[in-house]
Amino acid sequence: MTGNLDSYSLHAIGIVRSPLEARNRAPNQGSEGAPDAWIELAPSVQDGLDRIEAGDKLIVITWLHESRRDVLKTHLRGDMSLPLTGVFATRSPDRPNPLGLHPVTVLEIVGRELKVGPLEAIDGTPVVDIKPLLRASPDW
Amino acid sequence: MTGNLDSYSLHAIGIVRSPLEARNRAPNQGSEGAPDAWIELAPSVQDGLDRIEAGDKLIVITWLHESRRDVLKTHLRGDMSLPLTGVFATRSPDRPNPLGLHPVTVLEIVGRELKVGPLEAIDGTPVVDIKPLLRASPDW
Repeated sequence: MTGNLDSYSLHAIGIVRSPLEARNRAPNQGSEGAPDAWIELAPSVQDGLDRIEAGDKLIVITWLHESRRDVLKTHLRGDMSLPLTGVFATRSPDRPNPLGLHPVTVLEIVGRELKVGPLEAIDGTPVVDIKPLLRASPDW
Repeated sequence: MTGNLDSYSLHAIGIVRSPLEARNRAPNQGSEGAPDAWIELAPSVQDGLDRIEAGDKLIVITWLHESRRDVLKTHLRGDMSLPLTGVFATRSPDRPNPLGLHPVTVLEIVGRELKVGPLEAIDGTPVVDIKPLLRASPDW
């Protein structure tokens, strides 16, 4: 490996407030019956929300803090009857860097709190970035 | 803020090898004329590629290592005639956690090296995660 495999410090910019409390009861994807949730942004990054409005389609990036980082192969959707598959070919939360990608719609904004949905991340999940969807696409 | 705004250590899992060498000459999005590139994965995560094949649509997540992390408002596409906008409403690489999201197609796999395209990240950009697109959508 000739490249530089450094580490980087990711700072939580906010936190998910959700009725979902246990990872094993959370849907695999937002589109599979996940509830709406609030994202509570840190005061230090509130200016980054400027011009975001209800109705916007966003990609929320989370740090799936309860995940295992030492898993490289897994069974799709936890189904042990399926063959082992490399984690980079799956959306498993268990992976070297447990980042979650969540396409959501903004439902309401109150100060530095955003109501979004649907969101399958559990209560207390750290949020690390928010980006606009470049074009609405319900399922990716 | 009642939540826990911790920091997390993100480890590069690989690196981009691209003919693009300067950030100011890179397209804003892969769909805007970006070249194909190789992703050279670290030996320690090679098993995570299992079952990825040429033709697969993936989302590559990078760490945009040349970005500024102290920027909260920016001009869309660097156009100073446009109003300042919160970075979370833009795809600007300058943001508190400079994660890049890149939808790509796998063109070739040789060992732990993946040829993908199009990719607007510059040569040397660290890769931190790879996920499947849940459904092909060319533009998000």
